[in-house]
Amino acid sequence: MNYLGIDIGGTNVAYGIVNSNNEIVYSNSFKTSEFPNAKTCSKAIFDDLNENASQLKIQAIGIGAPSVNFFSQSIENAPNLDWEDDIIPLKDIFEEQFEISTKIINDANAAAIGEHIYGGAKDLETFAMVTLGTGVGIGLVINGEVYHGANGTGGEFGHICIDRVNGRECGCGNYGCLETYIGRDGILKTARQKIEFGGVTQLNKIIPSELSAKDIFKFARKEDPVAVDIVAQITKDLGYAISIITNSLDINNIFLFGGIAKEGNFIKKRTLKDLKPYLTAALRDNINLQISELINENPAILGAAYMVKI
Amino acid sequence: MNYLGIDIGGTNVAYGIVNSNNEIVYSNSFKTSEFPNAKTCSKAIFDDLNENASQLKIQAIGIGAPSVNFFSQSIENAPNLDWEDDIIPLKDIFEEQFEISTKIINDANAAAIGEHIYGGAKDLETFAMVTLGTGVGIGLVINGEVYHGANGTGGEFGHICIDRVNGRECGCGNYGCLETYIGRDGILKTARQKIEFGGVTQLNKIIPSELSAKDIFKFARKEDPVAVDIVAQITKDLGYAISIITNSLDINNIFLFGGIAKEGNFIKKRTLKDLKPYLTAALRDNINLQISELINENPAILGAAYMVKI
Repeated sequence: MNYLGIDIGGTNVAYGIVNSNNEIVYSNSFKTSEFPNAKTCSKAIFDDLNENASQLKIQAIGIGAPSVNFFSQSIENAPNLDWEDDIIPLKDIFEEQFEISTKIINDANAAAIGEHIYGGAKDLETFAMVTLGTGVGIGLVINGEVYHGANGTGGEFGHICIDRVNGRECGCGNYGCLETYIGRDGILKTARQKIEFGGVTQLNKIIPSELSAKDIFKFARKEDPVAVDIVAQITKDLGYAISIITNSLDINNIFLFGGIAKEGNFIKKRTLKDLKPYLTAALRDNINLQISELINENPAILGAAYMVKI
Repeated sequence: MNYLGIDIGGTNVAYGIVNSNNEIVYSNSFKTSEFPNAKTCSKAIFDDLNENASQLKIQAIGIGAPSVNFFSQSIENAPNLDWEDDIIPLKDIFEEQFEISTKIINDANAAAIGEHIYGGAKDLETFAMVTLGTGVGIGLVINGEVYHGANGTGGEFGHICIDRVNGRECGCGNYGCLETYIGRDGILKTARQKIEFGGVTQLNKIIPSELSAKDIFKFARKEDPVAVDIVAQITKDLGYAISIITNSLDINNIFLFGGIAKEGNFIKKRTLKDLKPYLTAALRDNINLQISELINENPAILGAAYMVKI
C-alpha cells in the first residue's frame, strides 16, 4: 500500500509516495510560486503522478502546510503563502482532484511526526521540532501526541514578538515577530542592514537579489566578519526564542529542521551557546538541542504520509 | 470523606479541609517565613489540625507548592521559598508527619485543576491559568489533562526572559525574568524606581517598606499619575508575556489568579488592551481573558485536594 505525503512550504511544494516499508518510492517538487492557488497546485501534482507514477496506487493523502487549522482542515490566513484565497479548504480541494481521502496538518507538526516515527525523537514522549524556513514554526509532541492547540492551529511560534521596542513589521500585521528576524526574508533583511554598515565583506560580491542564507553561512565559516555577525544575530534570536518554549513548557529535547538547520553543528553549537544563559537551572544541565536526524530527507513528507497511514 | 488541600506560597501557607461535597469545612494559614523548613511547616499544620479539627478525619493530602517536580514529588531549587534545603522531598516529609498518603503538584497546576473543576474553566479542554503572586506561574490544562512538562516541573513561566537588553537580575541567577517585573518584589521595584523619578505622587505618603501592590492599584484607581504609570507597566509586561503563550500554543482561554488579579476588571481590561496588539489575527477576535472565578476562594487548595480525591 502507498501513501502520498505532501509538504507545502512558502518556497517549495515537495511530495513523495511512501510505501508500506516507509520508503519514498517516488518524489518530486515544484516552486510554490508556480501556482496562483491550491487548485492548480493539486492539479499539477495529480498530472505529474498520472504521467510518471501511475503504477503506484495511492491509498490516502497526507499534507503538511503552513497556517493549517487542523480542526477545519483548511489553511487560514497564511502570511507565507502567496495563494489567492485567505481561507483555503485544502482537504476538499485535494479530495476533489484525486478522489482519495486526504488529511492536512500544520507543516511543523508533520515534521514532528516524521522525527518521532523515523528520526531522533523515536524514544521521546515530549519534544519540540523547530522548523526554520520561509516561516518559523514549531511542532510539539506532548506525552506522545501531536499538539493541535485549542483552536486547531497548533500555535504560531514564528509570531511571538521578540522585540517590543524596535520590532520589524511582519507580514501578519504585527511588529517584532520572531519570523521577521530568522525567517528567510528576515535573515536577508538583517544581512542587507549589516552589509550596508559593516565595512569590508565578501558578501558584497553577491548581487543582493541573489543573496541567500546559505551564502551567509558559507562566508561565516570562512570568518568573514560581517557574515559572522549576521549568523551571531540569527543564533542569538533563535536561542532566545527556544528558551521561551523550553522554560515555559519544561521541554528539554529540541530538534532543528529546515534550511539553516542544514548548517548542522555550525548553527547548533552557536545556538546552544546563546540559549544557555536564558535556561532555568534545571534545564541548563539537561538540554538536548539536536539537528533533525532527517535533515537531508523530508520529515514533513514522511510525517504527513504516516498520519494517514495509521 | 475529607481531604486536606495545602497551598504553599512564597508569602503564605494556606490550607483547608475539603469534604466530599467540595466544601472547605476548616481552613487556616501561616506566614511562610515562620518556618525555616518544610518539616516545621508540616508539624505546625499537623498540630493545628490536631488541636482545632481533630474530629475531621483526613483521607489524603494534596499540596500545591512552587518549583515542584511532579515526577520526584519534591520542591527543587525554589527561588521564592526561603526554606533551608534546595531539594525538599515534600511528599515524604508530610507523609512522615501525618502518616497519610500525600501528593504534591506545582501550585499553578493545582490552581488550574481548581478552576477546571469548580471555576470558570469547567467546560474547557485547553486553557492556561496564570498565577500572580510572589512568583509568577502558569498552569496548563491541555485536552483535559494537567500538563506536567517533560521533566515534571511543568515549566517556569516566571522565568522566561522579557528583557534581553536591560534585564533585571533574578533570584534564579538569570536576567530579565518575567517575575522580576510582575512578581511581588518586581512590582515594588518598579514602584520605587517610578516614585523616585516620578514627581508628585500620593504613593510618597506610604513608607517604602510598607508599600504594597494593593496600595499602587488603590492610588491608580484615583488616577495618581505615578501609580497609573506603574500599573501600565505591569499590564504591558503581563499582556506581552501572555501573548507568548497564546500565540505559540494557540490557547485563547486565559485565567488570572493571585494578588493583583484581585483587582478584577481594572487589571483585566488594561491587560487585554496591552495583549491584543501582540495576538495573531486568529486569536485577536477569539481571546478570552478572565479573572479566576475562584479569585476570593483558593483554587490551589481546592485543586490540590481534588487531585488526591480522584
